[in-house]
Amino acid sequence: MNRDRVVSGMRPTGKLHLGHLVGALHNWVALQEKYDCFYFVADWHALTSEYANTSAITASALDNVADWLAAGVDPERSTIFIQSLVPEHAELFLLLSMVVPIPWLERVPTYKEQREQLVEKDLSTLGFLGYPLLQTADVIIYDGKFVPVGEDQVAHLELSREVVRRFHQFYGEIFVEPQPILTPTPRLPGLDNRKMSKSYGNTIDLTDAAEDVTKKVRQMYTDPKRIRADIPGTVEGNPVFMYHDAFNTNAA
Amino acid sequence: MNRDRVVSGMRPTGKLHLGHLVGALHNWVALQEKYDCFYFVADWHALTSEYANTSAITASALDNVADWLAAGVDPERSTIFIQSLVPEHAELFLLLSMVVPIPWLERVPTYKEQREQLVEKDLSTLGFLGYPLLQTADVIIYDGKFVPVGEDQVAHLELSREVVRRFHQFYGEIFVEPQPILTPTPRLPGLDNRKMSKSYGNTIDLTDAAEDVTKKVRQMYTDPKRIRADIPGTVEGNPVFMYHDAFNTNAA
Repeated sequence: MNRDRVVSGMRPTGKLHLGHLVGALHNWVALQEKYDCFYFVADWHALTSEYANTSAITASALDNVADWLAAGVDPERSTIFIQSLVPEHAELFLLLSMVVPIPWLERVPTYKEQREQLVEKDLSTLGFLGYPLLQTADVIIYDGKFVPVGEDQVAHLELSREVVRRFHQFYGEIFVEPQPILTPTPRLPGLDNRKMSKSYGNTIDLTDAAEDVTKKVRQMYTDPKRIRADIPGTVEGNPVFMYHDAFNTNAA
Repeated sequence: MNRDRVVSGMRPTGKLHLGHLVGALHNWVALQEKYDCFYFVADWHALTSEYANTSAITASALDNVADWLAAGVDPERSTIFIQSLVPEHAELFLLLSMVVPIPWLERVPTYKEQREQLVEKDLSTLGFLGYPLLQTADVIIYDGKFVPVGEDQVAHLELSREVVRRFHQFYGEIFVEPQPILTPTPRLPGLDNRKMSKSYGNTIDLTDAAEDVTKKVRQMYTDPKRIRADIPGTVEGNPVFMYHDAFNTNAA
């Protein structure tokens, strides 16, 4: 039985939280039913933005994989690995860099965006510019046919296919052109109703103990209009009810 | 006995000629007396400019190493290897790329120069921009202390030392900062008194048969003023006499 391959990685830059579970891991688990999945710790990618502060990468890598397993990623069915332990990723990155014009990389929408947004980091490095090429190498090295992505990553995969075609133009047909699997990724808000993010301190981490989760949920943003118990609450826009929808399997 | 290490590579882009012998190989042979030498076929570097036409690289690699041995590079004393068979070069290149700002690479004098000169090639690639970083990786991966260079390569080594210092700033002291060995590289002119170069068709190749060498030397540019046998010739600026100085061990 030859199943199509899916390749996806996660940067080990911190603990995983419920946003990752709902936005990525549930999907990873589901994809195992239909595809041969390759899930990897993208530790070299973590360096593109975290090169000045690498102390957490190794611990995050191990921690994250434990969360993957707990969420249902099955090592009997899927291949789990650490990117930096497979030097061929670096080798293919180098080879791809030989044929890819710099303007292709400068044109990637997230490149300019992130350089402007993450002003506290110096992202003028060659590695940050080259990172869509490393992503391309990650996928095509395994003949990955599909990559689960959100809308904002579709441009990266478009670039990957262009890179493959340019490589083929010089050296013949070698790789598979990867296609996106656009996945519905429900956005789970943080405890304060902003985007859930470590930097906002509004996350529920997958490794949080039950009592910490209880404590955090009790402090959640709910319905700002319901200032007295006799005012009827609104379900819409209330993050507690979004959590309810996401996690109560007995929704009725 | 711990001897300092020398690292040097040659791009396998064609047959070697007398210019390589006098300009580089004689020096490589001499360096063996004093240093632990690492001499390598820089086939990944060849790709930076030859990625669109790679057919000759493998044959040139083998051919060149045979010439090295014939010239006196001694595999019992020196380490001879092919760059692309040591994937750690690519790995270290990737790691260096994470910390090195693009402007450092754009500032390398040969970068702009070569892009302007080699107009028939598209050198807008990421690989061409990154090539001084790959050179840096080639040397520091072996704790190379010295690199034999010509004047035009001194800026590359200056960059290498800056890269090492930046890497150390983040991750502690790991590498040796490589220094140039500025070597007198006598310029041997080609048969027509221009620079000896494959593209001018004015070379004597190291693999030329004796009768071909004889034939080529007989057609050499000599002294344009000596148009009759009774006019006295001039030694200065006469390439035949430069060859005489370079190769007649019994110069008297």
